[in-house]
Amino acid sequence: MVSFESDYIAGAHPQIMKRLAETNLECLSGYGTDKYCESAREKIRAACRCEHAEVEFLVGGTQANAVIISTMLRDCEGVIAAKTGHVSVHEAGAIEYTGNKVLELPEQNGKIVPDMLAGYVADFYADANHEHMVFPGMVYLSHPTEYGTLYTKQELEAIADICHQYGMTLFLDGARLGYGLMSRESDMTLCDIARICDVFYIGGTKVGALCGEAVVFTKNNKPRHFMTSVKKRGALLAKGRLLGIQFDALFTDDLYFKISSHAIEMAERMKGIFEGKGYKFHIESPTNQQFVILENERMERLKRDVAFSFWENLDEKHTVVRFATSWSTTEEDLMALERALG
Amino acid sequence: MVSFESDYIAGAHPQIMKRLAETNLECLSGYGTDKYCESAREKIRAACRCEHAEVEFLVGGTQANAVIISTMLRDCEGVIAAKTGHVSVHEAGAIEYTGNKVLELPEQNGKIVPDMLAGYVADFYADANHEHMVFPGMVYLSHPTEYGTLYTKQELEAIADICHQYGMTLFLDGARLGYGLMSRESDMTLCDIARICDVFYIGGTKVGALCGEAVVFTKNNKPRHFMTSVKKRGALLAKGRLLGIQFDALFTDDLYFKISSHAIEMAERMKGIFEGKGYKFHIESPTNQQFVILENERMERLKRDVAFSFWENLDEKHTVVRFATSWSTTEEDLMALERALG
Amino acid sequence: MVSFESDYIAGAHPQIMKRLAETNLECLSGYGTDKYCESAREKIRAACRCEHAEVEFLVGGTQANAVIISTMLRDCEGVIAAKTGHVSVHEAGAIEYTGNKVLELPEQNGKIVPDMLAGYVADFYADANHEHMVFPGMVYLSHPTEYGTLYTKQELEAIADICHQYGMTLFLDGARLGYGLMSRESDMTLCDIARICDVFYIGGTKVGALCGEAVVFTKNNKPRHFMTSVKKRGALLAKGRLLGIQFDALFTDDLYFKISSHAIEMAERMKGIFEGKGYKFHIESPTNQQFVILENERMERLKRDVAFSFWENLDEKHTVVRFATSWSTTEEDLMALERALG
Amino acid sequence: MVSFESDYIAGAHPQIMKRLAETNLECLSGYGTDKYCESAREKIRAACRCEHAEVEFLVGGTQANAVIISTMLRDCEGVIAAKTGHVSVHEAGAIEYTGNKVLELPEQNGKIVPDMLAGYVADFYADANHEHMVFPGMVYLSHPTEYGTLYTKQELEAIADICHQYGMTLFLDGARLGYGLMSRESDMTLCDIARICDVFYIGGTKVGALCGEAVVFTKNNKPRHFMTSVKKRGALLAKGRLLGIQFDALFTDDLYFKISSHAIEMAERMKGIFEGKGYKFHIESPTNQQFVILENERMERLKRDVAFSFWENLDEKHTVVRFATSWSTTEEDLMALERALG
Repeated sequence: MVSFESDYIAGAHPQIMKRLAETNLECLSGYGTDKYCESAREKIRAACRCEHAEVEFLVGGTQANAVIISTMLRDCEGVIAAKTGHVSVHEAGAIEYTGNKVLELPEQNGKIVPDMLAGYVADFYADANHEHMVFPGMVYLSHPTEYGTLYTKQELEAIADICHQYGMTLFLDGARLGYGLMSRESDMTLCDIARICDVFYIGGTKVGALCGEAVVFTKNNKPRHFMTSVKKRGALLAKGRLLGIQFDALFTDDLYFKISSHAIEMAERMKGIFEGKGYKFHIESPTNQQFVILENERMERLKRDVAFSFWENLDEKHTVVRFATSWSTTEEDLMALERALG
Repeated sequence: MVSFESDYIAGAHPQIMKRLAETNLECLSGYGTDKYCESAREKIRAACRCEHAEVEFLVGGTQANAVIISTMLRDCEGVIAAKTGHVSVHEAGAIEYTGNKVLELPEQNGKIVPDMLAGYVADFYADANHEHMVFPGMVYLSHPTEYGTLYTKQELEAIADICHQYGMTLFLDGARLGYGLMSRESDMTLCDIARICDVFYIGGTKVGALCGEAVVFTKNNKPRHFMTSVKKRGALLAKGRLLGIQFDALFTDDLYFKISSHAIEMAERMKGIFEGKGYKFHIESPTNQQFVILENERMERLKRDVAFSFWENLDEKHTVVRFATSWSTTEEDLMALERALG
Repeated sequence: MVSFESDYIAGAHPQIMKRLAETNLECLSGYGTDKYCESAREKIRAACRCEHAEVEFLVGGTQANAVIISTMLRDCEGVIAAKTGHVSVHEAGAIEYTGNKVLELPEQNGKIVPDMLAGYVADFYADANHEHMVFPGMVYLSHPTEYGTLYTKQELEAIADICHQYGMTLFLDGARLGYGLMSRESDMTLCDIARICDVFYIGGTKVGALCGEAVVFTKNNKPRHFMTSVKKRGALLAKGRLLGIQFDALFTDDLYFKISSHAIEMAERMKGIFEGKGYKFHIESPTNQQFVILENERMERLKRDVAFSFWENLDEKHTVVRFATSWSTTEEDLMALERALG
Repeated sequence: MVSFESDYIAGAHPQIMKRLAETNLECLSGYGTDKYCESAREKIRAACRCEHAEVEFLVGGTQANAVIISTMLRDCEGVIAAKTGHVSVHEAGAIEYTGNKVLELPEQNGKIVPDMLAGYVADFYADANHEHMVFPGMVYLSHPTEYGTLYTKQELEAIADICHQYGMTLFLDGARLGYGLMSRESDMTLCDIARICDVFYIGGTKVGALCGEAVVFTKNNKPRHFMTSVKKRGALLAKGRLLGIQFDALFTDDLYFKISSHAIEMAERMKGIFEGKGYKFHIESPTNQQFVILENERMERLKRDVAFSFWENLDEKHTVVRFATSWSTTEEDLMALERALG
């Protein structure tokens, strides 16, 4: 059966597997102090054109979100996120578990709207009782969002301006960053992201790695004794090499961007297949996740041949489902999908 | 200057002060084990007509909310509250500080709507990925709400039914419970509250005490070793007598209800004064807090003679302000207000 | 029955009760912003001869410890305490509940020994793996200690020097501070405490108040938005006047010191009574708590007439028990004790 | 340069790398629901001869400790550990970060002594004030310990008896479990561990895997909705296959035990080399970590050719250092060590 269930259904990109095998017998120091972590850091700094960037590796996305938010917020602060943001909905309360509140904003297509953000923060400071409330200390956004949508450079800069006007940190969750950067509709490069955001991460898990997220602090703002804080959160990997070698491979010969481009190319062709057969999309996504509206009976039949994931019930007769592409999606997969759609 | 700023501007009701003075020299054991705590517990059980109720005293409302929620939720659970609920907005993230998420629902007049609650929980369990989300484990509601409004018995029972259908605890924040029970529009007694809710508290701080909230567990559901959990949260008072004596006084000769009735009577008359002069209300409140719309210039003038509290900006020219009555509100206060309104 | 069970068996000193009664009808703003809180702050600053001191009021000792420690430590840090320190043993894990580790040191007579402290911290920084460990960020000590013993000025200064050498905060728990200052063996004044420590609190609960501890930040080091952090921990009292009025009374006409002196005087006489009858002390305490060794049968008989508290089993036939004096201890109490001892 | 720095200096055992490569293109579901996780669970249950055991995979040791302890303790409880236990010293306060106290016991050779444990718990319950203290709810022990030492079956059973007498959970940290089981001095099998302990984990990271620990709940005691609790702690791996495939390989053809045996064999021969040259050991370790006393000048010279790790300063002239073996230690490594020792 062909699968478009998610972008983490396969193992790692073969080039990553090759490097893990080649380096397997080398004796390396632990906890992210090895030469491959160092090399990966250097390559990421170069790719960001941000020489002073501080780069640290974590294992997964929820973990990265919890570590970054809880080490960068001050005691009186919380983090603003779209109501549909991953930290708001799908992390089982991991941010709250660290003692910090997620302040939810309404969203449009999964995105925070700069004007709403500005209004929210202005209202907060206008409130005479705001000392009894959680201060907005950080803005969390995901790019691409949970709906596959993208911020424009103008939007991201507008959000950054609001953040800096009010002393808030701008944090971008890039679990699928590559797919955003390689989207035909993107008007931003990795350098733009690094220039505009205060901290972000470059997702590995969903972009060809076995696991791993590379956190980039761009404003000399890495929390002091960060390694200890990571350890304290149970997030420090003994064989840090596992992350370093993977990111070193991803940032060698543009592998990260090639993987992302391939998935985007596959997604565009998949989109064409659905459109050609008259299917409608729930949302216009320019990235590797496509949200298709299926008539329920058809959905049940399709399930026999193709794996995809449930998104939400649209109405009594229709369901929104998600098809995702990744480094491992092949032309054969697309042909199988086309056949299954009948 | 006359003040309607809040219902905690004065000290304690004279009867409470009298009892504190009379008992002052008695040697009593600490931490809520003294005879006055025991007597207050007994009187509260009788007033609730709930013999098996377990009653414990805490110092303040935010503390009570944090202690109750964090000791009663299971690890995978969060607490549902109206978006305007005190735990959602005005507790500086105290619930999240305990590691637990507040799941916000839209509200109507400050109240949770049973149908919306039912829909929210049904959607949660329908979601294939709900194991990645915070489980709804408790419903928090305030009665009266932050807007002075009241649930009807039918509404509260409907919410309780939903809670019990899904294994959720129904928790009622009664920081101003007396004003709700004594409102002309109330169709519930204290016994109804005790019968319908799983846990609630009878507010003292805002109903005539110096401090103190009496938490009532109605279903043999007091968490085991609750005293230790209270201590762990820094909420155990050494001189527990301070709480016991006050609640013993409040539940002697119906003082709690008399205080509340008085404030309601004063609020009704205050309402009449505003209406008589053509003022509009932002919301129809049947309890001791009245939310009046003031033209901004008039508001500034009024401030010179009367204390009240800012609620929110309505539009460029109007502000919503709150006037609260309490045990200490006098006829003279009302007359002074009437004069000041001109 | 006469009671020496603790120093919080009675209500408040009559002068405090008088002030609470006199001010009861005044309309005051909430949350510690009223004029009595302000006046108390000013008087405490004067008593400390520390004009820039920042003073805040909290309800109880465990709460004060948890709030101070958790708002002042950095993420990678923990607090050093004697193994017998209140935060180590008798707070039900309140410090750990805030996510912070208590680093226990061996003690001598309940006190931290400067040399051991220096050794501990030096060893920490000498450890090549100390980034995997909790950094020592604060030293907690109680004065008087849980055993009634006192630090000398030289000892406290030595500890302060070590703290400042390693960037640690020196925090003194003064739940019973008055009894320490008024002890015949004390060589420190309140000004010394304020000069040497970075933060400390002046205990009210155990020195004549109904409740309340006055936290003093002496180095312009009050955490930013402290009120919000206090609220977040459920520790902000709505009727803050309850604390302000009490501390205003305690620091008027030296009441705090007179209360303490009286208890010390009573303790010295009580000590004489025990000595005169040949009883032995478990520890040499110069303050208001006396730890007496009782033969078990005698202890059982004594219990019929006198209340005291169990401290620990010494051996099969003897028990250590505690007798405490306070503002409420009278000559009659001592005579009754003498009679009961036979 | 030859390295004995730790047992996680190399990548994974070649058999694991092979399986990761072979399965790399397979489409598998995420979060530990794939067939390899299921197969690994089944094989571990069989190896433990415990059919009802519930097995879950986590990424690392500190994470496993924090997740297990914080999901299994009740609110009033803490976890007992030896003063030298990993959770006490080298996890940067990860347990306290979850809000739970580590109750430290004195140790002998890194081990908890049954009599001391029994005394500690008995004393706790004998204390009249124990409701103000953290209840002992779990015993944590590591096997082998941080010093490479082993519990005997009799000791472990004695500890289990005490645990069960007082309603405590017995949790064994098996980060290096294989080396314990394969030690010549071990009198326990994996089945004994599974029978005696309530929960334990089989360490992968330090026994040949890239990462991963297999947690085994032996008494139908896996916390409800454990996946959600794991997610909440940022510990849920999206590509759960990475853990499942590795443990499936480790428990195929006894690979886990073979890896462990090899390391033990190498450690024994290394021990012989040191002994043959007259070196002394700081502690008698029967497992893969050897703690050797080196004269400081000799240590400095040795560092040029051999990597090992600092343990502690013994005296002014001597240092204790650790040499560890693992799956990757070769005869050539031992010969190189022998040459370097001169």
